[in-house]
Amino acid sequence: MLFFRNDYGAGAHPAVLEAVLRTNMELTSGYGTDPHCLAAAETVRGLCGCPEAAVHFLVGGTQVNKTAIAAFLRPCEAVAAAASGHICVHEAGAVEGSGHKVLAIPAPDGKLTPALLEEAMAGPFSEHTVLPKLAYVSNTTELGTVYTREELYALGEACRRLGLLLYCDGARLGCAMEAGGTELADYARTCDAFTIGGTKNGLLFGEALVIVSPALQPDFRRYMKQQGAMLAKGRLLGVQFEAVLRDGLYRRLAAHANAMARRLAEGLEALDVPLLVPARSNQLFPILPAGAAEALAREVEFEVERQLDGARTCIRFVTAWHTQERDAAALLEALARILR
Amino acid sequence: MLFFRNDYGAGAHPAVLEAVLRTNMELTSGYGTDPHCLAAAETVRGLCGCPEAAVHFLVGGTQVNKTAIAAFLRPCEAVAAAASGHICVHEAGAVEGSGHKVLAIPAPDGKLTPALLEEAMAGPFSEHTVLPKLAYVSNTTELGTVYTREELYALGEACRRLGLLLYCDGARLGCAMEAGGTELADYARTCDAFTIGGTKNGLLFGEALVIVSPALQPDFRRYMKQQGAMLAKGRLLGVQFEAVLRDGLYRRLAAHANAMARRLAEGLEALDVPLLVPARSNQLFPILPAGAAEALAREVEFEVERQLDGARTCIRFVTAWHTQERDAAALLEALARILR
Amino acid sequence: MLFFRNDYGAGAHPAVLEAVLRTNMELTSGYGTDPHCLAAAETVRGLCGCPEAAVHFLVGGTQVNKTAIAAFLRPCEAVAAAASGHICVHEAGAVEGSGHKVLAIPAPDGKLTPALLEEAMAGPFSEHTVLPKLAYVSNTTELGTVYTREELYALGEACRRLGLLLYCDGARLGCAMEAGGTELADYARTCDAFTIGGTKNGLLFGEALVIVSPALQPDFRRYMKQQGAMLAKGRLLGVQFEAVLRDGLYRRLAAHANAMARRLAEGLEALDVPLLVPARSNQLFPILPAGAAEALAREVEFEVERQLDGARTCIRFVTAWHTQERDAAALLEALARILR
Amino acid sequence: MLFFRNDYGAGAHPAVLEAVLRTNMELTSGYGTDPHCLAAAETVRGLCGCPEAAVHFLVGGTQVNKTAIAAFLRPCEAVAAAASGHICVHEAGAVEGSGHKVLAIPAPDGKLTPALLEEAMAGPFSEHTVLPKLAYVSNTTELGTVYTREELYALGEACRRLGLLLYCDGARLGCAMEAGGTELADYARTCDAFTIGGTKNGLLFGEALVIVSPALQPDFRRYMKQQGAMLAKGRLLGVQFEAVLRDGLYRRLAAHANAMARRLAEGLEALDVPLLVPARSNQLFPILPAGAAEALAREVEFEVERQLDGARTCIRFVTAWHTQERDAAALLEALARILR
Repeated sequence: MLFFRNDYGAGAHPAVLEAVLRTNMELTSGYGTDPHCLAAAETVRGLCGCPEAAVHFLVGGTQVNKTAIAAFLRPCEAVAAAASGHICVHEAGAVEGSGHKVLAIPAPDGKLTPALLEEAMAGPFSEHTVLPKLAYVSNTTELGTVYTREELYALGEACRRLGLLLYCDGARLGCAMEAGGTELADYARTCDAFTIGGTKNGLLFGEALVIVSPALQPDFRRYMKQQGAMLAKGRLLGVQFEAVLRDGLYRRLAAHANAMARRLAEGLEALDVPLLVPARSNQLFPILPAGAAEALAREVEFEVERQLDGARTCIRFVTAWHTQERDAAALLEALARILR
Repeated sequence: MLFFRNDYGAGAHPAVLEAVLRTNMELTSGYGTDPHCLAAAETVRGLCGCPEAAVHFLVGGTQVNKTAIAAFLRPCEAVAAAASGHICVHEAGAVEGSGHKVLAIPAPDGKLTPALLEEAMAGPFSEHTVLPKLAYVSNTTELGTVYTREELYALGEACRRLGLLLYCDGARLGCAMEAGGTELADYARTCDAFTIGGTKNGLLFGEALVIVSPALQPDFRRYMKQQGAMLAKGRLLGVQFEAVLRDGLYRRLAAHANAMARRLAEGLEALDVPLLVPARSNQLFPILPAGAAEALAREVEFEVERQLDGARTCIRFVTAWHTQERDAAALLEALARILR
Repeated sequence: MLFFRNDYGAGAHPAVLEAVLRTNMELTSGYGTDPHCLAAAETVRGLCGCPEAAVHFLVGGTQVNKTAIAAFLRPCEAVAAAASGHICVHEAGAVEGSGHKVLAIPAPDGKLTPALLEEAMAGPFSEHTVLPKLAYVSNTTELGTVYTREELYALGEACRRLGLLLYCDGARLGCAMEAGGTELADYARTCDAFTIGGTKNGLLFGEALVIVSPALQPDFRRYMKQQGAMLAKGRLLGVQFEAVLRDGLYRRLAAHANAMARRLAEGLEALDVPLLVPARSNQLFPILPAGAAEALAREVEFEVERQLDGARTCIRFVTAWHTQERDAAALLEALARILR
Repeated sequence: MLFFRNDYGAGAHPAVLEAVLRTNMELTSGYGTDPHCLAAAETVRGLCGCPEAAVHFLVGGTQVNKTAIAAFLRPCEAVAAAASGHICVHEAGAVEGSGHKVLAIPAPDGKLTPALLEEAMAGPFSEHTVLPKLAYVSNTTELGTVYTREELYALGEACRRLGLLLYCDGARLGCAMEAGGTELADYARTCDAFTIGGTKNGLLFGEALVIVSPALQPDFRRYMKQQGAMLAKGRLLGVQFEAVLRDGLYRRLAAHANAMARRLAEGLEALDVPLLVPARSNQLFPILPAGAAEALAREVEFEVERQLDGARTCIRFVTAWHTQERDAAALLEALARILR
């Protein structure tokens, strides 16, 4: 079976594994207080051009979103997010579970804009309603779309104007940076906090949380502990992030995933297969005619996004750092055969 | 420096790492639905002699305690635990963070007994008070003491009589089984749910949660997701538990840790160093005269438990699967020199 | 100033006040365990034709909604409600504050239907999403629309089919019963739980919660206490509900409020003032041309619902048990003068 | 039956009821934004000598404690309270229900002291533990003991030094002021927030919350709404507090309750009935020999505090604004007869 189901199906990049192996028998303090985490945090601060940022390493995406939002907001304060946002749909109510409402803003391409935020903040809000206090964006979005550098700065400006914290879920930040022309320093200049996703870009697991705003930094490690989000052998996170961040591997892996997706997108265009939204990063949402998805599923692992009218099916292909050129070719070939 | 600080200072046992490496480039479904997790769960059920148990793999100890208790209890229902219990003191209010009071029961050796539970349940409880509904025990306890097989069954019987769920935090369950003569099947027969700790016994990370009571099983994976407790590359947990459970490695590693602790305990006795509580498992709590702890800290990493009267200091030594005989000898030698 | 701002602007109906006065110096047990609460609960059960129902008296609407939903649902379970529902917009995130997501279903007239519920329940739901478990409806709705007897039974049937609890917020249940031809027994037959609102129909304060489903009844008083929802001098609630329920006063007061609203609706029609939705109960939403709302506000207290296009303004008039015929006439006269 | 069960068994003082009656048909805005609440808040600020205090009126004691603590603390922050404190035992886990641990400090007379707080704050605290951030005291305490003016200022000083907010639950503040020689201004100078209890001192219901610290004031009304703690006909609270605060009635009612308790205490001493703690305010805890409590219960309503050794029973007598001299005499007479 060809595998285009997701970008967390394989283990870690060999360089990451090698680092885990190499450091295996070191004896260090736990919970992220070890030299590897300290060094990795310093590397992140350097790449962000932000020496005052607090950097924490957590295991997973829902965990970091939930912990950050629980720590940053007070009761009654709410989150504004695109209706397709991960925290709106795919985290089993984790944010609400810690007491905060998530306002879902319809956004066809999965991207918040200053205009959408302004409309959402027009209210009316009163002491009888929640008050949105944090804008959640994901880059890349859940639809594979990407914020450009300009869009990011515009969002940052809008959030400051509207009294919103800007939080960027960077579960696929590598692909977003490659596709949108952004650097870590851009996120440090625009966001109050953001994550650098490792799980989907070559690590066994791990999300780095960069807290830029000094007001949001105090006590964060205690909040992590309370949420069960401190890893005992925390250095595993530092070791892995060091391995991908030190020499640009993180960017190269993401660039490869994007390139494989572009390869697929070109092939799909040649086959006249439309996409739900224009392809920008490592997720593609092709729309197949009746019967084609079922046929393809016999040869390829992928996810069904949703049924459309006229029996058409929107499916999802995801590429990753380990996707092979020959597998992309084989996928297109299979599809060509089915659609013929 | 000699390292007796904790049992999570090193990485994984070579056999565990080898399994992670061997399966690294497999492409599987995520979040614990892969064949490795299914096989490991089956292995656990077999060892427990409990084919109907639900088995879940989570990353860490606070995470599994918090998630299980949040899932098992309804609002107003409380937990009864020894005052030294991990959830009482060292989890930053994780259980209270999900809305449940923890009643702290003083227990000098860290162990709950039927008598202590009966006293705690004598109340008075009313509609103006919380109602304890779950007894939390840890085995081994935070003081290194251990429940024997008889004590475990007596607790189980007391809990059923008192209308309490029995939950056993097995972060160090291997050491407890070796020291107390218990088998996994004993926990399955007495507890409503319990954990098998991997982090402190040879894994990179991982706690297996065994939910014995059918009433507590439904929807548990959704609760895990809501708590940020589902690992994307979940198979890492299955792969590691398979590696230690299939051929008895889990027990051998724990037996080694206990043996190293016994070695230390004998040496301490020879040195006339008293212990806070009698040594049973891989944690020892020696009481040192004034000045000795400071001197020892120059050569050995350990934790200070607390200051006692007369300037004596209670410290903690922890042994693990990787503790070397020669390091134990060196520690005793250093101590002999200091105390001379 | 004429007062059409809301239905909680005045105190209590004289018969209610008289009962409070008459019983003032009685010495009874507290927290709703007194003879008046017991008798009022019995009266409610009788009117509902449901001798097994549990009946509790709480002080306010947000309080009863929050307490009931927190008690009825487990973590990860969500609420489905019309987007205009009180819990969606006007309770400051009270339901999310106790950990539960509220799914907002667009419904132009504020009413859920079996078709809307079926669509909402079509999902996809998985262990990565919340699971809706309770449908919240308000009768009358926040737009003054009303569920008929047939609609109520259809909703009840749909909820049972879809695995949803049906909860009816009856803050204005009197007006709903008068307008929709429903009786308390109809709610007891279709809902798992519902409230009978006193605050907006002649009481100083008070909402009766009727829990029909036996599975939802245990421990509810303890949940009330935990939520701060037990009134110390609880008998005040029983005394007031007895005063309005025993001889039909509750229905007469609601009928009067509806009649006053009908009077206004006829007058508005004569003045060619359109309504946002057809008038059914004691809330009307007239749409006024540019400038008229501002002019009217000099003589009449009312609330602005929202600005519409073309500078038109949708406002809200609310009638109550104490609304005078002459005040309705004066309002229409003022409006006629302004619109001329 | 003579009634010494509690101080919320009767309705309201006639002057309070008269005010409710007199204002019944006024038409005002809701939720505490009316002129009566504004005036009553102004009166409170005046009595406190604290023009910058925020004053809110809530219905009940658990409600105000829960809402205030939820609003004041961030996640992981905990409360320190005497083990006998109301929030520790009699609020069904309301504080934990909003996510905060309550550390129970043993205090035989129910009173926290600077020394007890210092010991509690000695820790050790770390990022693995909660951090106490608010000291909760009740005055009078649940044992009827009272903080003097000096003790109150010493507590305030200790809290500032230890980084704790000081919160005083004044459910029986009138009796505490009369017995301890404190004035409202003393609380405003020492506490960050405190309540002035109405329910137990002549009102139908109502607790005034005085938030002295500016940092704790923002958004509080929204937190009230989220907790279901805003009364729709909020003016009822303002009207009642005006009635008792304007002319000193609040103090006179409390003085009467204390006087009746003193009368009882003298009688008990004459009968050689010991008290659990020395009598200071309107609650007494006599210790009766075997059988006496049962005999007394046939003539008098009271609560049993707990069984002591040797079959002795500690019971509770509570006096209130409406306790009659002749009832106190009758109680003592009955007791004399039984003990003879």
